[in-house]
Amino acid sequence: MLLKHFFLEKIAHSSYILAGSKSCAVIDPRRDADLYINEARQMGVRITHILETHLHADFISGHMDLAAKTGAKIYAPKSGKCTFEHVAVSEGDSFTIEDMKLDVLETPGHTPEHIVYVVTDQSRGTSPIGAFVGDVMFVGDVGRPDLFPDIAEELAGKLYHSLHDKLLKLPDYCEIYPAHGAGSLCGRAMGAKWTSTIGYERNFNPSLKIKDKNKFIQSLTSNMPPAPDHFSRCSDINRKGPEMLSRLPGMEELTAPEFKERMQAKGCLVLDTRSYPAFAGFHIPGSWHLDIGGNFPTFAGWVIPPDRDILIVADTYQDAANARLWMQRVGIDRTAAYLGGGMQGWINNGYQTGTISLISAEYLYNLVNKDKKSFTLVDVRAPLEYETAHIEGSVNIPAPELRFRSDEIKKEKPVYLICSTGNRSSLAASILKQNGFTDV
Amino acid sequence: MLLKHFFLEKIAHSSYILAGSKSCAVIDPRRDADLYINEARQMGVRITHILETHLHADFISGHMDLAAKTGAKIYAPKSGKCTFEHVAVSEGDSFTIEDMKLDVLETPGHTPEHIVYVVTDQSRGTSPIGAFVGDVMFVGDVGRPDLFPDIAEELAGKLYHSLHDKLLKLPDYCEIYPAHGAGSLCGRAMGAKWTSTIGYERNFNPSLKIKDKNKFIQSLTSNMPPAPDHFSRCSDINRKGPEMLSRLPGMEELTAPEFKERMQAKGCLVLDTRSYPAFAGFHIPGSWHLDIGGNFPTFAGWVIPPDRDILIVADTYQDAANARLWMQRVGIDRTAAYLGGGMQGWINNGYQTGTISLISAEYLYNLVNKDKKSFTLVDVRAPLEYETAHIEGSVNIPAPELRFRSDEIKKEKPVYLICSTGNRSSLAASILKQNGFTDV
Amino acid sequence: MLLKHFFLEKIAHSSYILAGSKSCAVIDPRRDADLYINEARQMGVRITHILETHLHADFISGHMDLAAKTGAKIYAPKSGKCTFEHVAVSEGDSFTIEDMKLDVLETPGHTPEHIVYVVTDQSRGTSPIGAFVGDVMFVGDVGRPDLFPDIAEELAGKLYHSLHDKLLKLPDYCEIYPAHGAGSLCGRAMGAKWTSTIGYERNFNPSLKIKDKNKFIQSLTSNMPPAPDHFSRCSDINRKGPEMLSRLPGMEELTAPEFKERMQAKGCLVLDTRSYPAFAGFHIPGSWHLDIGGNFPTFAGWVIPPDRDILIVADTYQDAANARLWMQRVGIDRTAAYLGGGMQGWINNGYQTGTISLISAEYLYNLVNKDKKSFTLVDVRAPLEYETAHIEGSVNIPAPELRFRSDEIKKEKPVYLICSTGNRSSLAASILKQNGFTDV
Amino acid sequence: MLLKHFFLEKIAHSSYILAGSKSCAVIDPRRDADLYINEARQMGVRITHILETHLHADFISGHMDLAAKTGAKIYAPKSGKCTFEHVAVSEGDSFTIEDMKLDVLETPGHTPEHIVYVVTDQSRGTSPIGAFVGDVMFVGDVGRPDLFPDIAEELAGKLYHSLHDKLLKLPDYCEIYPAHGAGSLCGRAMGAKWTSTIGYERNFNPSLKIKDKNKFIQSLTSNMPPAPDHFSRCSDINRKGPEMLSRLPGMEELTAPEFKERMQAKGCLVLDTRSYPAFAGFHIPGSWHLDIGGNFPTFAGWVIPPDRDILIVADTYQDAANARLWMQRVGIDRTAAYLGGGMQGWINNGYQTGTISLISAEYLYNLVNKDKKSFTLVDVRAPLEYETAHIEGSVNIPAPELRFRSDEIKKEKPVYLICSTGNRSSLAASILKQNGFTDV
Repeated sequence: MLLKHFFLEKIAHSSYILAGSKSCAVIDPRRDADLYINEARQMGVRITHILETHLHADFISGHMDLAAKTGAKIYAPKSGKCTFEHVAVSEGDSFTIEDMKLDVLETPGHTPEHIVYVVTDQSRGTSPIGAFVGDVMFVGDVGRPDLFPDIAEELAGKLYHSLHDKLLKLPDYCEIYPAHGAGSLCGRAMGAKWTSTIGYERNFNPSLKIKDKNKFIQSLTSNMPPAPDHFSRCSDINRKGPEMLSRLPGMEELTAPEFKERMQAKGCLVLDTRSYPAFAGFHIPGSWHLDIGGNFPTFAGWVIPPDRDILIVADTYQDAANARLWMQRVGIDRTAAYLGGGMQGWINNGYQTGTISLISAEYLYNLVNKDKKSFTLVDVRAPLEYETAHIEGSVNIPAPELRFRSDEIKKEKPVYLICSTGNRSSLAASILKQNGFTDV
Repeated sequence: MLLKHFFLEKIAHSSYILAGSKSCAVIDPRRDADLYINEARQMGVRITHILETHLHADFISGHMDLAAKTGAKIYAPKSGKCTFEHVAVSEGDSFTIEDMKLDVLETPGHTPEHIVYVVTDQSRGTSPIGAFVGDVMFVGDVGRPDLFPDIAEELAGKLYHSLHDKLLKLPDYCEIYPAHGAGSLCGRAMGAKWTSTIGYERNFNPSLKIKDKNKFIQSLTSNMPPAPDHFSRCSDINRKGPEMLSRLPGMEELTAPEFKERMQAKGCLVLDTRSYPAFAGFHIPGSWHLDIGGNFPTFAGWVIPPDRDILIVADTYQDAANARLWMQRVGIDRTAAYLGGGMQGWINNGYQTGTISLISAEYLYNLVNKDKKSFTLVDVRAPLEYETAHIEGSVNIPAPELRFRSDEIKKEKPVYLICSTGNRSSLAASILKQNGFTDV
Repeated sequence: MLLKHFFLEKIAHSSYILAGSKSCAVIDPRRDADLYINEARQMGVRITHILETHLHADFISGHMDLAAKTGAKIYAPKSGKCTFEHVAVSEGDSFTIEDMKLDVLETPGHTPEHIVYVVTDQSRGTSPIGAFVGDVMFVGDVGRPDLFPDIAEELAGKLYHSLHDKLLKLPDYCEIYPAHGAGSLCGRAMGAKWTSTIGYERNFNPSLKIKDKNKFIQSLTSNMPPAPDHFSRCSDINRKGPEMLSRLPGMEELTAPEFKERMQAKGCLVLDTRSYPAFAGFHIPGSWHLDIGGNFPTFAGWVIPPDRDILIVADTYQDAANARLWMQRVGIDRTAAYLGGGMQGWINNGYQTGTISLISAEYLYNLVNKDKKSFTLVDVRAPLEYETAHIEGSVNIPAPELRFRSDEIKKEKPVYLICSTGNRSSLAASILKQNGFTDV
Repeated sequence: MLLKHFFLEKIAHSSYILAGSKSCAVIDPRRDADLYINEARQMGVRITHILETHLHADFISGHMDLAAKTGAKIYAPKSGKCTFEHVAVSEGDSFTIEDMKLDVLETPGHTPEHIVYVVTDQSRGTSPIGAFVGDVMFVGDVGRPDLFPDIAEELAGKLYHSLHDKLLKLPDYCEIYPAHGAGSLCGRAMGAKWTSTIGYERNFNPSLKIKDKNKFIQSLTSNMPPAPDHFSRCSDINRKGPEMLSRLPGMEELTAPEFKERMQAKGCLVLDTRSYPAFAGFHIPGSWHLDIGGNFPTFAGWVIPPDRDILIVADTYQDAANARLWMQRVGIDRTAAYLGGGMQGWINNGYQTGTISLISAEYLYNLVNKDKKSFTLVDVRAPLEYETAHIEGSVNIPAPELRFRSDEIKKEKPVYLICSTGNRSSLAASILKQNGFTDV
C-alpha cells in the first residue's frame, strides 16, 4: 500500500492516490485530472477506482474526466443520488483493491450524503490503517455543517454522531486523510499539516473536545465564515457530473478594438486578473477585479455570475489561461476571450481608463485621526475578522456583499476601503465603481 | 555547413552557430552561453571556435564562459588589443573549420577594430556563401559610427570604405549575418528580418544608396539615437574578458524588515522591476523603476550605477532572477538581494509607500486644452521621437537625462510625463520623486 | 517582415512563419501544429494564412488542425483539386499580408500541382526578397520528379521549365525557402544549410548547371532513391484534409498478458521501437523492428500497413508516445496500444522471446575471408548505396523490399545482414524472422 | 507546522521539510540539495536548520551543499564526532523552530551514533505529534544493526532498547517519519507506505513483536541482506562532510577514437549504463555493465572502485549525466567522460564489440531438463533470494562477489547466469567477460 497526497493551493484541496502494486484509487479528484493519470503511469499502476466522499460544494470534481480517460469506476454515496454511472455505496459496504479493504461509513454532518472510506491494509494487519474522511474531520477542525442553512442544526447533530460514534471509534493510530487543509472555507480553523491521526485529533482537536452535543451544535452553527455563492451550485454540478474539460470551448485572443467591441455584447463582463496595484494604476472602466495572486477561485466562484461570458484582462496569456482554469475548477465555465497583449494595447489605442488611489496604513492612520467625518471607511473583510479587530468608525460590508449593499454607502463622500492584503479592497473598489462611485 | 541563429529580444542581439559535421563556431555569443553548449550537444558537434567581430558596446559577450567550458579558441580582431588569451586576426587572415573557409576583412567604422568573417563553403563552391558582418551592415541599415563622439566623422568615413570597398564587393547572392536586429540601438532603423543578402541590401538599403562619401558621413553622424551610458563600459569589459557568470555572488532573499534595513547600507539602491501600473499603484519611496516587461536591459545599463549594490523589488523570484540576468548581460553585476514575497510583505509591515497617478491619453488631451499653464508636461522620449511628433507646450527631456536635468523643471507645479508605452515615464517619475518632486 | 524557420528532423521538413506586425502566414505546416500557435502567440501576431505549396507526399500536413484552431484561411494550388475549404490559387494570383505581397508561380515538376509563393516586402523594396519554393528547388538540389513513375519524364521536363523559366528569373539576391533539408527523400543530395539564394544556387547547384533539357530529364529520372510506400498515400490524405489529431483515438496501456492476448486479435501487428542492439538482445517473436532513434517515420510509413492496429513495444511511455506521433506525421494513425512497463513485464511472465546475433565489422571481415559459401550475405541498403561500395559476394535487397522478396534467400543457410548503421539490418532481420528464417 | 516528504527512488531514501510559517528544517537531505531550496522558496519559508539523524551508510548527505547555499545550521549527533561545523546534540537536548519543539533521543542500534528528533507542535498540543526516526524504525521493519559486523550483536541489543525503551514510549498516535522506504538495503522488509504511526507499528511490525531481547538480537543478526561495499565508505565521507557538488570536475564528451585512447589511460574503467538487452546486443569489450533502469546506484556503489576514472557509455547525454549524478549520490565522484553519440560512433569506426546471448525462461527450462552437465548455471541473486527458491543444480554467487570468486567457475564450459530481472545477470556477465570467460 502506497499513499500519494496532492494539494491544490488557494482552495486548499487535498486529494489522494491509494495504490497497490498494479492498480490504484483516486480519492476526491480535482477537475483537471491529468496529473493523477501521469502520476499513476510513473508509479506503474492503473487507475481502477475513483472514490467520492461527498458532493463537494467548493470545487468541481474530476470524476467524469478521470472515468472517461481511464475506464475506472466511480464510487459515490448512495444517498447522494448521483445521476451519472457509478457504484452507489452505503454504510457497511466494503470492497477491495488488491490486498486493501475499504469499508464505507455513513457520516452525515458536513453534507447529508457524506461517507468515509476506512482502509485496512490486509497485508500488514487486521485493523484500520487510515481513513479518507473527506470534510467530516480536518486537522485541528471538523467540517462545517451550516452550508445548508435550513437544516444546519440537524446536520450539526448528525455530525456529532458521525464523529463520536463512528470516527472516534477507530484506533488512535489510525491516520486520517481529509479533503482540505488550512485555507479552505469548508472548515473554520484547519492546521497547516495535511494529515493526522485519530488519537492526536481526539486529544488536541478543539471541536472534538466539546463533549456536550448541544454545545457542539451551538458552536458549529455560530460564528461560521460566510459560504460563497458557488457552494450550492457546485454540489449540483457534481451530482450530475460536470462537462468534460476538453469539451469546453476555447478562449479567444482579441485585439484591443475587438475586445472593446465584444464588451458591448449582451451578457459579457470584463474580469481583470492583474495584481491589485496594477489595477489601481489603471484599468478598463466597469471591469471586475480579482487578483490572480490572491484567493482567486473562491472569490471568482462567489461573485462572478456563471451565466455571463467572461472577457479576461491579464498580464500574459499564461495568466489568462490560469484564470480560466481556476474558474473551471469552481464551475465558472464561460471564459470566452482575453485581451491579447494585455492592457498595453488598450492604452496604445487611447481608450479610457479608470484609476484608484492606494494609500498606506500610515496615511490612513493620519487620515482617521484628522477628520473622520469627511469620508466613509468601509471594512470589506468577513464579519468574523471585523469582530476580532477593526478601526473605529469603519463599517463592515464584506466585499462580495457590496454587489447588493452598495446603496448603504453615500456616493457623495470619498470612500476608503480596507481589508487584510489589498485583494478584497480591490474587488470591492471594482464593484463600487461599477455602481457609480467615483472617489474610491 | 549548417547555420543556426539565436536572437535575444530586448537588446535585439543575433548570434550564430556555424557548424560542420563534427565541430562548430559560435559567433558573437551572449554572456549566458550555456544555450550554445546545449544546442551543439543536440546537433552532435563540438564548439571549437569562438568568433568575435568586435568589442561589443551594448552587451557583455560570453566568450570567456564559453572558452572555459568548452576549451574552444577565441578569435578576435588584432587591433582590439584584447588582454585575454585569443587568436588575434587581421585583414587577409584565413582559417578553416572542416570544409568551411573563413576569411577576415578589416571593416572599421562602427568601432575601430571591427572585422568581418567571410565564409566560403568549399564543399559547394568557390565563392563566399555568407558573411558575419557584426555591426557593420544590418538589415536595412548600417552600423552607427558615432559611439566614439570624438572620432565619429573619422569612423563614418572608414565605415563608408568598409561598406563600399569591402562588403559590397561580395557577390549579390552572398548572405549577411549581422549581430543585431530591429530594436537595437547599434543602428537607427533595422528591419525585423534577421538576415539578408548583399544584393538585396545593395538595392534597397537606404544608407548604402548614399554614394557620396561626405553626405554619407553627414547622414551617419546626425540624428542618431542617444548612446546609453554602458556603451563605453561594455567595450572595456569585453576587451579584458568579463568575469565568469558562475563566479558572481548569489542573490540573497530578504524579508521586508531585512530589506528595509539593508536599504540604509551605504551604496545600496532599490530597483523596482514590476509593471509600471503596479509601480504607480504603490512603491517603496526612493526606488528606481524599470518595468521588466519593457526594454529593461538597455535602460538598466544606462541609468543604474554599476558600483552600487542593487536591491530588487519584483512580483516573483523568477522575475527578480530574470532582472539580475538581464543586468549581467549589460555588465551590471552587483545585484545583491531581492525582497522575498514582493511588495506584499512591505505593505503588511505597514511601511510607507509612494504612489503615482496614471492618466489616459484622453484625460491628458482635455487637460492640455483646458489650462496649459497650471502644470509642466515633460516628454521623456528620445529627441528624435520628440521631433517627429509631440504635444505642443511639452518640453523634451529624455528619461535617462533626468538624472542630471531635473532642476530644469519647477518643483512647485504638478508634472505630467509622457512617452510611448508608459515605461520611460515611469522611470522618469521614479527619478523625479528621488529628487524631491511630489506631484508627478 | 520577419521569417521564422522550423525544422523537423528525421523527415528533414522545413516550415515557416512569415510575419508582419500583427498577422502571419504558416507555410507548409507539419501535422502537430500547436508549435506555430504558441510561437505566433509569443511573437504577438495572429495566424491568418496557411499556405500549401503542394500536396506533400512524405508527410501529413497540419493545415486542417491549424485552420480549425485559428480560423486562418488555407491557400492551396488550384490544380491540386483539394476537397476541403480553401482559397485555390494559380499562376498570376497575388495577395497581401500587411505590407508583404505574395505572388503565385505555377511550378509543376516535383508534383503536377506545385506552386511557389514569391514574397515582396513592399516596405523595403519593389523586388522579391524571397520565395517559398516547396520541393521545386532545394539547397544544392532540385525536387525529384519521379514520384509518379508513369509521368516521370513529363514531370522532369516541366521541372526544367519551372526552374529555368520561372525561379531562375528571380534576382540573384532573392532568398529561397525550401520545404526540405538534408536527409529528405524528396531530393537526392541536399545541403545541410536550410535556406539559400537564387544566385548561389544558380552558380553552385549541380542540377541547375545541366543546361540541356534532355540531359536534365535523364539525370532526374535515373539513379533516384526509392520512394517509400506512403508517398502516394500521403498526397491523397493531404488533398482530402487529414483527420484532426485531437480526434484520433488514444493509445491504451496494456500489461504483458493483455498485450499477448491482443496480439491474437485480427489485423494487429507488434512494432518494437527500442534500440537495435536491445531488439537483438531479445524481442517478442513476430514483431516488426524500427529503432526510434533512426529514420523511424520514413521506414514506418514505408513498411507498416496503415490498415492494421499497431501494438507498440518501447522502453518508456514517452518513447511509445513519440513513436505514435511520428507515425501520425506520416499518416499511420492506428496506434492502438503499448506494452506498459516495456519488455520487462514480458520477460517476467516467462513468455517466449527471440534473439538476433550482432557481429562487428571485424568479425564479418574474417568471416567473409574464411568461407563465403557457408552463408548468405544480404546488403539491405538502397541500390544507390550498394552501387557506390559493397562487399563482394553480397546480394542487395533493400530492407523494405524484403517484405516481398524474402523467398530470394535460402532459409537453410545462415543469413548475415549489413547496412550502414544497424537500423535497417534490424528491420530486415525482423522481416526475415516473420517469414520463418531462424538463423539471422 | 507543515511537513513535506521527498522520496528518492532506487535508494528508497526519504527526506523531509518541516516548516513553520517563516522558517524550516530539512531532515536527512540528499546530496543534490537544490530541490529543498526551490521548494522552500515556493513555500515562502527559509531553510534555517539541517538535521542529520545519523551518519548515513548508503548515500552521501547534502548537508554541506545546503548549509553553504542557505546559511542554515547543521545539527548532528554528538557521538558521531563530525569534523565539519555543526551543532552537536545528544540525549535530552531540545531546540525550537518557531512554535515547534524538537527533542533529541539517543537511539543507537542501526549505527552507534543514531539519534531521533521528536516533534511537538506547541501551537496544537503538549504531546509529540511525530518523530524523525531515521533508520531506527521503518514502516513494517526496524533498522538493520549488522552494518558493523564486529559489533552487530551489541548494536542489536542497543537497538532493542532504543525501540522498546524510547520510541515505543511515545503515544500511539505519534507519527513516524523514517529515512527509508521499500527498496532500501537499510532494512529487510519495509512497506511501500512512507510514514506510519507508533501505534500501528507497535501492533503490526513483526520485529517489534519479538519481545524477547535475545530472540530479537538473533533475528536481527541473521539472514540479513548483504551490505554493499560503499556502506562503510559513505559514513566516513558524511562524517567529514562531502565535497560540494559544484566543485566536482565536469564530464568530458569524447568521440569514439578519443574514448578508445582514453581507455588505455591508467586507472580508467568503462561503465556501460544502457539497458541490459542492448548491452547483450553489443558492447565494448572489457566494460562493466549496470543498467541505468535498474538499481543502478546501489550496485555502482558496491562494485565500482571509487579511485578509478570512469568512462561512461550511455544512449544519450541525459542518461550519462544521470548515471554521473546517481554515482555522486553514493560517493563515486570520478566520472571523467562519456562516449559522445553512444555506441553508434564506436560501431561506425569498426572497433571490436562483445556480445552476450540472452535466453528466455522457457529456453533455460528445456536446457536444464536436457543436459545439466554440459554447462554451469550460476544464480547471481543474494543468498536469501537463492534460499527461498532456485533451480536445482545451480550454484549461488551473488553478482558483486563474482569480482573475487570467478575462479570458482570453470572457464571451459558455457556459463548461464540467472537473476530476477536480468540486470544483475548482465552485471555478472560483464564481470565474467572481464575475467576471460568467453561463452556466457
